[in-house]
Amino acid sequence: MTTVRIVVVGANAAGMSAAHTVLRAARSAGRGVRVTAVEASGHTSYSACGIPYWIAGDVSSGDDLVARTAQQHRDAGIDLRLGTRAVGLDVSRRVLTCEGETPGEVEYDELVLATGATAIVPDWARAAGGALVPGVHPVKDLDDGEAWIEQLSAEPRRAVVVGAGYIGVEMAEALLRRGLSTTLLTRGRVMGGLDDDMGDRVAAGIREAGVDLRTETTVKRLETSEGRVSGVVTADGDVLPADVVVLAIGVEPATALGSDAGLPVGEAGGYLPDAGGRIAAGVWAAGDCCEVEHRLTGQPAFLPLGTHANKLGRVVGDNLLGGDRRFGGALGTAITRFVVDEVHVEISRTGLSSREADEAGHDVVALVTEGSTISGYMPDAAPIATKVIADRTTRALLGVQVVGGPGAGKRIDAAAAALWGAMSVDDLAGMDLSYAPPFATAWDALQIAARRLAERI
Amino acid sequence: MTTVRIVVVGANAAGMSAAHTVLRAARSAGRGVRVTAVEASGHTSYSACGIPYWIAGDVSSGDDLVARTAQQHRDAGIDLRLGTRAVGLDVSRRVLTCEGETPGEVEYDELVLATGATAIVPDWARAAGGALVPGVHPVKDLDDGEAWIEQLSAEPRRAVVVGAGYIGVEMAEALLRRGLSTTLLTRGRVMGGLDDDMGDRVAAGIREAGVDLRTETTVKRLETSEGRVSGVVTADGDVLPADVVVLAIGVEPATALGSDAGLPVGEAGGYLPDAGGRIAAGVWAAGDCCEVEHRLTGQPAFLPLGTHANKLGRVVGDNLLGGDRRFGGALGTAITRFVVDEVHVEISRTGLSSREADEAGHDVVALVTEGSTISGYMPDAAPIATKVIADRTTRALLGVQVVGGPGAGKRIDAAAAALWGAMSVDDLAGMDLSYAPPFATAWDALQIAARRLAERI
Repeated sequence: MTTVRIVVVGANAAGMSAAHTVLRAARSAGRGVRVTAVEASGHTSYSACGIPYWIAGDVSSGDDLVARTAQQHRDAGIDLRLGTRAVGLDVSRRVLTCEGETPGEVEYDELVLATGATAIVPDWARAAGGALVPGVHPVKDLDDGEAWIEQLSAEPRRAVVVGAGYIGVEMAEALLRRGLSTTLLTRGRVMGGLDDDMGDRVAAGIREAGVDLRTETTVKRLETSEGRVSGVVTADGDVLPADVVVLAIGVEPATALGSDAGLPVGEAGGYLPDAGGRIAAGVWAAGDCCEVEHRLTGQPAFLPLGTHANKLGRVVGDNLLGGDRRFGGALGTAITRFVVDEVHVEISRTGLSSREADEAGHDVVALVTEGSTISGYMPDAAPIATKVIADRTTRALLGVQVVGGPGAGKRIDAAAAALWGAMSVDDLAGMDLSYAPPFATAWDALQIAARRLAERI
Repeated sequence: MTTVRIVVVGANAAGMSAAHTVLRAARSAGRGVRVTAVEASGHTSYSACGIPYWIAGDVSSGDDLVARTAQQHRDAGIDLRLGTRAVGLDVSRRVLTCEGETPGEVEYDELVLATGATAIVPDWARAAGGALVPGVHPVKDLDDGEAWIEQLSAEPRRAVVVGAGYIGVEMAEALLRRGLSTTLLTRGRVMGGLDDDMGDRVAAGIREAGVDLRTETTVKRLETSEGRVSGVVTADGDVLPADVVVLAIGVEPATALGSDAGLPVGEAGGYLPDAGGRIAAGVWAAGDCCEVEHRLTGQPAFLPLGTHANKLGRVVGDNLLGGDRRFGGALGTAITRFVVDEVHVEISRTGLSSREADEAGHDVVALVTEGSTISGYMPDAAPIATKVIADRTTRALLGVQVVGGPGAGKRIDAAAAALWGAMSVDDLAGMDLSYAPPFATAWDALQIAARRLAERI
């Protein structure tokens, strides 16, 4: 039997999940494979989500964020080529062209595109010539993390964070905890993935912690001094002094390699793998360079998260040699926190927001219920607000959002499981969730919220 | 339209959920009801689960455990008769006979039995004459809690807790935190509702905290001194000095009233309500005096927990005037913790244990997986052991058990939701659960465990 030549582009969560999975599959099937992975950076398999906590000081070194080192990948039998960028792809000839430390053409039988996403850098963040204005930086990869650690070693005093999604909120926490006077700007609202009435609760916590939060504010330009950023000028004309500026506007799928080769991409610019991870004959994709199927709408959604990257990477790895594993879809589940001194806000969501549900054609009914994370007489009881979103006609559960104190966030998983099983709001209200005074109220906050909504339908 | 006379026996979670629910239902339907509640004790609607935390000192007063006072019930229109014990029932004449503060016969159209459960008191705990030996006490109701607060005010130094289920473990925590030298005895193993390999992990934490844990040990008799307990003599002949002894052997349904009246009870001695809460014409039951349907086996199970009491009480309340609400069944979900100084063990389970699954006729496959509660590089990361139990033939998820550090316990709810939806071990492995470094690993511990088991089937 011939050796199957597998080439993986991008050596992070998705790509390396695929690589290790196919090696295991080949071993157990007695098949011969040669797995080559090309990676433009010098890093492999790191937790991008951990970078804000490295910057905050919770994690002492970027090395701690590396789940598997280059050496570990090589020891597993992967021909890992760091510092090597894939710059050309011929899908008919099945040839990849690389530049960098290991340049040249690489032939493949099966190609895995796992090129991830790149931070969006607006024009105002660039100096003449295109480089970032010194002091201004995104938070995407380990190199960015190192750049931030270096910036902070110069003891800046004032930070402006631009963008108030997950990364923006996490960076506001990190910089405030590092002692910087912090402004958080967003052209929309805080945590735009939440309904407004839930995002407003996050905003209140962020303000309470001392962040100068400015919603519906756009950046017009930067001010500089001695070649470094010194301020952010808003469209309203306000000048916000800044020693450092965080770019947390968002990310976009890195799909130039494939789209230049004629591979289709979706509305958000991501590859569109089928449930098995394939995008074309001999070409597969996984991770943040993809749009994934939303389990509730059946439509592709750009949800750049490590969870999907790992899962879809594994699906691809199982299928490269002819397996039939399928990615079950995404629910849009996400979680983060904003924790500074006495302020502790946990934030999570799953399923569709009210707006998304409306756009998907549902007759939406939704309700926010305030409760307690645990029995009110326990010392650590904290408020929790739970929004449940359902379809009025079918009573189907569509989404849940949670904002609350310690222990609130991970509650979302029970709702995610209910959505995975296409359950109703009555199921969520009636199911047998766990209760003891240090953990919940006798009717869990999720269930009180579901019950109250169910009573209104 | 005539007024429906509803009489509730027992004014705690189940009974008062039924009472308030039927009042609401009557109001919205424009029906006339008269709701009478008789309660043998002087207390209403309190959290029995909170008593160990009152004893531990987390809760300053038994009043804090009361969710709704007698006055609140009366203000809502309930004729509440405290200190009144129902001693006779004639279901054909629909008459209840009471003794105590409001003695006499009470006629009803619909009767709700919500008499709860009583602590099992073994013979060795009683002095000649039948009273408890002073210093020996169960932990069931608010009067017991008051008795414990009084006992502890005498500053006992040595405690023996008999029984290592939920209450026993919680009381061992409470007494150790109160500074008592504590021995925990059980005739079986710790947390017998868990599989042995999971219960052993709990036992290790309990021992690490300094409890003298003795498994497979039975009590032969007590030693007394000056009319108070002074020691516990085991069947092996060991004498364990004790100033106080906790009876945490278990509870049994309080169903004498009904069974004396000819109403059927189940193998565990509990009433057997149908899914609507009815046990006979004009007679309903809810709460700890019942066995409830286990959703996975379809069989009655004695699961005396506030969660089911509240839910079934509400079902009964909705159905008393002709509604059609149904109790969805129980999964055997439960949670507790053992937290003393540096030892923090959270314990939870849902679904069937390996033994229960085997007895239910499944071809059982199960696996324990050790992981981390949150990303390993985060300061608060803690170990978590997850046992997943499934059917080898159908791949159906049957049960999950969790023992781990902070944040481990409530993980069980996602598994409970999956069980509620009759999902497979592959569903649990593949579903979209929440991830961020302070909350989980990229593959949540539950999912790693499910995935590893799925790979072995």
